[in-house]
Amino acid sequence: VTVYLVGAGPGDPELLTRKAARLLSEADVVIFDRLVSSEIVQEARADAVKINVGKHPHDGSASTDQSTINSMLVHYGRTGATVVRLKGGDPFLLGRGGEEVDALVEAQVPYEVVPGLSSSLAVPALAGIPVTHRGLAAHVTIASGHEVDGNVDWVALGALEGTAVLLMAVANRAEIARRMILGGRGSSTPVAVIESGSTAREHRVVTTLDSLGTIEVHAPAVIVIGDVAARIVDPEVVLFKELAQSWGEGPS
Amino acid sequence: VTVYLVGAGPGDPELLTRKAARLLSEADVVIFDRLVSSEIVQEARADAVKINVGKHPHDGSASTDQSTINSMLVHYGRTGATVVRLKGGDPFLLGRGGEEVDALVEAQVPYEVVPGLSSSLAVPALAGIPVTHRGLAAHVTIASGHEVDGNVDWVALGALEGTAVLLMAVANRAEIARRMILGGRGSSTPVAVIESGSTAREHRVVTTLDSLGTIEVHAPAVIVIGDVAARIVDPEVVLFKELAQSWGEGPS
Repeated sequence: VTVYLVGAGPGDPELLTRKAARLLSEADVVIFDRLVSSEIVQEARADAVKINVGKHPHDGSASTDQSTINSMLVHYGRTGATVVRLKGGDPFLLGRGGEEVDALVEAQVPYEVVPGLSSSLAVPALAGIPVTHRGLAAHVTIASGHEVDGNVDWVALGALEGTAVLLMAVANRAEIARRMILGGRGSSTPVAVIESGSTAREHRVVTTLDSLGTIEVHAPAVIVIGDVAARIVDPEVVLFKELAQSWGEGPS
Repeated sequence: VTVYLVGAGPGDPELLTRKAARLLSEADVVIFDRLVSSEIVQEARADAVKINVGKHPHDGSASTDQSTINSMLVHYGRTGATVVRLKGGDPFLLGRGGEEVDALVEAQVPYEVVPGLSSSLAVPALAGIPVTHRGLAAHVTIASGHEVDGNVDWVALGALEGTAVLLMAVANRAEIARRMILGGRGSSTPVAVIESGSTAREHRVVTTLDSLGTIEVHAPAVIVIGDVAARIVDPEVVLFKELAQSWGEGPS
């Protein structure tokens, strides 16, 4: 294998898998994106080639487009170097890893996928939210909110019971909430918003589905919609005191 | 903290997080379930108390009920020992970790949740299946199939596009497939069945939704329903050759 597509997890270096940590320490070339923390990238060898292919959420540098990333993977993969493509979260859950695999397969470059902890599940867990819980949610749906008129039928998602976890949904949160309510989700459904989850800047808010569009939210954020969201531990802001009271003796 | 609820991932010891591995090596008491491989349990200290609270899928020993497990966690937690509750996959995704948290909170025993790789995502990834992929699936729903008339509306799930991943669904797979087709899922939708994923006994099959109930499947298995399932790499059995041909030039 020459190219490893590796999930870096939600941010905390201790939440890397042992396999990811080993490959990172061995790599000749590390190609990482904006959701990978610098602490993790620094674990690569000092003499490894390190390439940042995504803009950081807190500065203005431009992002590299997917086809360029694919070409880079093929280019370095063909040199026979050990290449680690380090992706925030998991490569195959909203990570576009499948497209990178397609490029490598077409170019006949050997590859291996190393799963990582997806922020969609790990960030709620670290905030005390079980995405499934007896009596509250029997299943969870994970979606990207980066397009509101793309391939997700938000009305149908609103008709489904259970938990919905949205990534990349900050900009479209008002319209997504509106469509989910149209589909049948209660407007007072609890919603947890976890900004910069698993980092020192983490910020937790709980609100309701009909208010999601009216509150201030800073990307990156994980948005959890459903009764389990009320189980969030130590939120810094609770909107709608009457709801907070009715949630009452929750475990937080 | 005295009780850590720790995800052990899908089976491969290298897919433990570094944090899980560290806590396991430090624990005084390790309480583990049937989905945790013995290789992983052996990483605990030789003098640690090790308690198996679930039956192994390949032998007949009885499972411990959830309320007994909760009581054990409270009991050992109150001694002040470092307790690791090691759960297969992730504690908070179909893992009943929320119930264990409730018991610990009620007993005022300090706890911490350490997320792990859920088999629902890691097992498909290791088999080459991205649960989301541009043009094929924009979202993924993860559900337990252990009850067919429980809290999952299979007809509504059938109406939702995207990928469905089912755990604990071997016994009910025929009826679940029937209801999802009733909801609108195409009967020829590709389905991947991965038995004993990430272990030496792993076995991969691809079939269609209307045939899922007719093929032999051995638990534990992860069942992936949706167009992405056809991307499985190196399946040992492909049912319905004409479909296999039409899936044709997939990356496998």
